Amino acid sequence: MRKVCIIGVGMTRFGKFIETGIEDLGRDACWAAIKDAQIDPKDIQVGFCSHSNGGRVAGQRILKEVGIAGVEILNIENACSGGSSAFRVGYCSVAGGFYDLAIVVGVDKMYGSGGLIPPNLEDLDGMVGRTLPGRYAMAIRRHMYEYGTTVEQLAKVSVKNHKYGVLNPYAQYQKEVTIEEVLNSRMVADPLTLLQCCPAGDGSAALILCSDDLKKKYSNKKPIYVGASVVKSGKYFTADTDITGMEFVSRAAKEAYDIFGGGPEDINVCELHDAFTAAEIMHYENLGFCKKGEGGRLIDEKRTEIGGMISVNTSGGLLSRGHPLGATGVAQIVEIVCQLRGEAGRRQVANAKVGLTETTGGAIPEIGNGACSVNIFYS
Amino acid sequence: MRKVCIIGVGMTRFGKFIETGIEDLGRDACWAAIKDAQIDPKDIQVGFCSHSNGGRVAGQRILKEVGIAGVEILNIENACSGGSSAFRVGYCSVAGGFYDLAIVVGVDKMYGSGGLIPPNLEDLDGMVGRTLPGRYAMAIRRHMYEYGTTVEQLAKVSVKNHKYGVLNPYAQYQKEVTIEEVLNSRMVADPLTLLQCCPAGDGSAALILCSDDLKKKYSNKKPIYVGASVVKSGKYFTADTDITGMEFVSRAAKEAYDIFGGGPEDINVCELHDAFTAAEIMHYENLGFCKKGEGGRLIDEKRTEIGGMISVNTSGGLLSRGHPLGATGVAQIVEIVCQLRGEAGRRQVANAKVGLTETTGGAIPEIGNGACSVNIFYS
Repeated sequence: MRKVCIIGVGMTRFGKFIETGIEDLGRDACWAAIKDAQIDPKDIQVGFCSHSNGGRVAGQRILKEVGIAGVEILNIENACSGGSSAFRVGYCSVAGGFYDLAIVVGVDKMYGSGGLIPPNLEDLDGMVGRTLPGRYAMAIRRHMYEYGTTVEQLAKVSVKNHKYGVLNPYAQYQKEVTIEEVLNSRMVADPLTLLQCCPAGDGSAALILCSDDLKKKYSNKKPIYVGASVVKSGKYFTADTDITGMEFVSRAAKEAYDIFGGGPEDINVCELHDAFTAAEIMHYENLGFCKKGEGGRLIDEKRTEIGGMISVNTSGGLLSRGHPLGATGVAQIVEIVCQLRGEAGRRQVANAKVGLTETTGGAIPEIGNGACSVNIFYS
Repeated sequence: MRKVCIIGVGMTRFGKFIETGIEDLGRDACWAAIKDAQIDPKDIQVGFCSHSNGGRVAGQRILKEVGIAGVEILNIENACSGGSSAFRVGYCSVAGGFYDLAIVVGVDKMYGSGGLIPPNLEDLDGMVGRTLPGRYAMAIRRHMYEYGTTVEQLAKVSVKNHKYGVLNPYAQYQKEVTIEEVLNSRMVADPLTLLQCCPAGDGSAALILCSDDLKKKYSNKKPIYVGASVVKSGKYFTADTDITGMEFVSRAAKEAYDIFGGGPEDINVCELHDAFTAAEIMHYENLGFCKKGEGGRLIDEKRTEIGGMISVNTSGGLLSRGHPLGATGVAQIVEIVCQLRGEAGRRQVANAKVGLTETTGGAIPEIGNGACSVNIFYS
């Protein structure tokens, strides 16, 4: 297995871009990554595109816009973790020695494309309201009951991530919110209020992967290395699992730590899947940043803020940076690369050496089988 | 790069199954492949699913039906060549040493799912009728003009492939047709009549990949080896290309032959992308089975029939076996494996040792960038 590094990253601002096609969003992100890597797009040997709503051969449609045509191009979908899954395939294509220089682009339009995630018609629970906000609400209610987690702790996640969104020019929301505003915003699924749910959004993110031994041939950019890339499937929020956790996220994280040869204590910066505030609290525990049930305390003690034990969702996270499904996993990696390079501007984490991304999606009824990805990076 | 073999194949009959879900189709194909390989599904370490219309995380929904959950599962789309693209990713996952035992499933429902390929709203040519049949019709008209190809030669492709469909219990159509019936069927896009266009169809196909060094650990089945697996993108039927050929198919084939260490003269059986009779004639040339312009002569001389120089589309091809988009590339490989094992029953090609599959799709307007895959297998 060859060592693989990221030599370029780029993204569009996330937001509501009704009039902009996915080809345009994807092109802008790809050009940004190509320019950042200081490479000639003609040197790129393979392309991977993640999307949920982009239509057939979206990757081909996007990549021709930056002059990448003729080479192998694959389109990958894995619900909310599609971007990370495309990254995983791209990583394997270079690590396995099939290619030396690859581009990964994630893109989606959730506005104007029927892009929200409706329940399946056969999903009776979903059709009477047990959609994703409802599932997360039930899970965190149980968490509150068992571990004393409070609505104020949930609100603090939203406050933190909106605060960092203000510092990220690519974030969909660039406005701070207070605990009171979060708790008093419209109730979506008790206890989750509107400001605790990630928005629908449009956007794209891209990155360039290179084999370590050939990076100097293509670019002078400081490389950020891939320490581990893991994709798993599994059930969550089902009657036969502990709904206050997500077993397969813990399992993916454990495998990633093992491959990397480290543990949660080594992570300086983390982008995790805060589709709802509840998710961030639970993922602190799933990823091993604290013991089971202590997620709420972590946010109370500001240990996941910049300057704390581990800086979480410095991009603003899904809650504030936004969540165009297929783009999210790639955007998370873009943020980690910026942090590990020391190029994160006003939201820079001092001495960030090791970063982790986690994306989780595909919650389907009891019989479900979701998708989760955990990646580790180092400088 | 490790040597990779196929140790199990399975598929559903292709057809019109309005009431059957893709989970059911996929499950049946996967079970068939698992039983054929004589393995325990719990040993499968990774799954790849190709589909166009299956909805989010279709692979996860299908594979849990055969007890495969928890492991890495990825969903891959590449228009008509999606099945071959998923195969390519599965092949790389084993060849690259990431996994030892993988399942690849292709599935689609074209009936009852809005599954046909409409032109994009922005595609003005397409909106006034230059859809896929029209594009192929224009291409073959030029081919007729330049090389003297005749409508009778086109019709003979349909006659041949329908004849073999009768011998394949999994084929959508199992009825012979005559040249007269083909030419007198309803005109779709002159010169292509209805019986020269592949049908809409529902179905699934699956296969099990294993690393050569570990195959005896899992199965006693006779292995069929992967000699080459290539995916390329490229333009076709555009004003700046020779519309009587498809440059990127020839390019993919050349690379596959080079990797395999052979040439078109080594191929005994071939499943190629006969979405229209015109395509089969042109692909004879694209794949190097004859010189440019001689495709029509090949069918006249029965050189692509069973017992001829190279047996093409013994499954019945897209024209008769059917073409559920995401399933097609996998179904092609299923047929080649049956032939190389000597298990193709009444349509068996004597002494078949080397087989090739070719799938091509994603034709979009002038600015397009389609997807093509060529795989070579040997016993």
